[in-house]
Amino acid sequence: MQQLSIYLAGPDVFWPDARDAGAAKVSLCAHYGCEGLFPLDSNLDLQQLSPYAAGLEIFRANIGLMQRADLVIANMTPFRGPSMDVGTAFEIGYMAALGKPVWGYTLDGRLYADRVSANGAGVDADGMAIERFDMADNLMLVGAIDDSGGSLFTSPAEHSLEAHLAIFEKVLRSITGRGK
Amino acid sequence: MQQLSIYLAGPDVFWPDARDAGAAKVSLCAHYGCEGLFPLDSNLDLQQLSPYAAGLEIFRANIGLMQRADLVIANMTPFRGPSMDVGTAFEIGYMAALGKPVWGYTLDGRLYADRVSANGAGVDADGMAIERFDMADNLMLVGAIDDSGGSLFTSPAEHSLEAHLAIFEKVLRSITGRGK
Repeated sequence: MQQLSIYLAGPDVFWPDARDAGAAKVSLCAHYGCEGLFPLDSNLDLQQLSPYAAGLEIFRANIGLMQRADLVIANMTPFRGPSMDVGTAFEIGYMAALGKPVWGYTLDGRLYADRVSANGAGVDADGMAIERFDMADNLMLVGAIDDSGGSLFTSPAEHSLEAHLAIFEKVLRSITGRGK
Repeated sequence: MQQLSIYLAGPDVFWPDARDAGAAKVSLCAHYGCEGLFPLDSNLDLQQLSPYAAGLEIFRANIGLMQRADLVIANMTPFRGPSMDVGTAFEIGYMAALGKPVWGYTLDGRLYADRVSANGAGVDADGMAIERFDMADNLMLVGAIDDSGGSLFTSPAEHSLEAHLAIFEKVLRSITGRGK
């Protein structure tokens, strides 16, 4: 059987320990017989570029990794707001359109509506409607996972590398069918 | 020349005046000889479904509209945080993967880094790195627009239907090549 390549999407690249986090996820993938592709820009030569041009280079490198990957595991834990990281949301959309399975996890156990509206109101402070679809985030993201045959794993926990790796490994086990 | 079909992405569907907003954007599209596809779930029969199943139906309907569209114009104005709406980010990724042009606009004139970090710090309160690529949002979104041949329009303004329609029309004029 050919080795599965997994794109490791998430705001993990912004963590102070991004390099260690990526290495740990890649190592877990290898343990389960898979290749993990972590989108850290460490192999790109960006020194001579303007910030904008450097951003474009990283974009193109990440697109290349997604083209190569067979599926994606996305860290969908809320990032700087009630929803997941928008770059990761973009990547879920990209992989979904390529017909590749989308798997995800979140360390926030609440439904999206409960995260935005603690008192159950149907609109937020700006008068914007709050989606109540019993989903962990916007319906396009959860719908893409469901329709692709993947799953969204939830494990309420404080943010820590250990907590991320524990639930990430559960996803890996489910994908590869290997118990433990 | 065949009529261009444009997917109208954005959190506009959550506005209190979503129906009017959608109708106004579709009407502007028609004025420029295009078909506007606004993802409001008004034509779906969701009454008998659980909230989760209803969410999936809306997801599938929106996917169908994106498959039909030739390009997307996304409202990328920040939504419930420093970044754009994640459902819209998903849709930009989906359209990018299909090789369709991505156009966008935002009513927030600041760069993403300045929105997150008023004092110029390189990390946020949680120690997460702040991207400084001189872009209006995450590099995957701006990169997708740039690489697809589209453009991101910026016009600092308070949120109002009039402000959205004014900049939306600028995007339409640029796409269709019609001055005014």
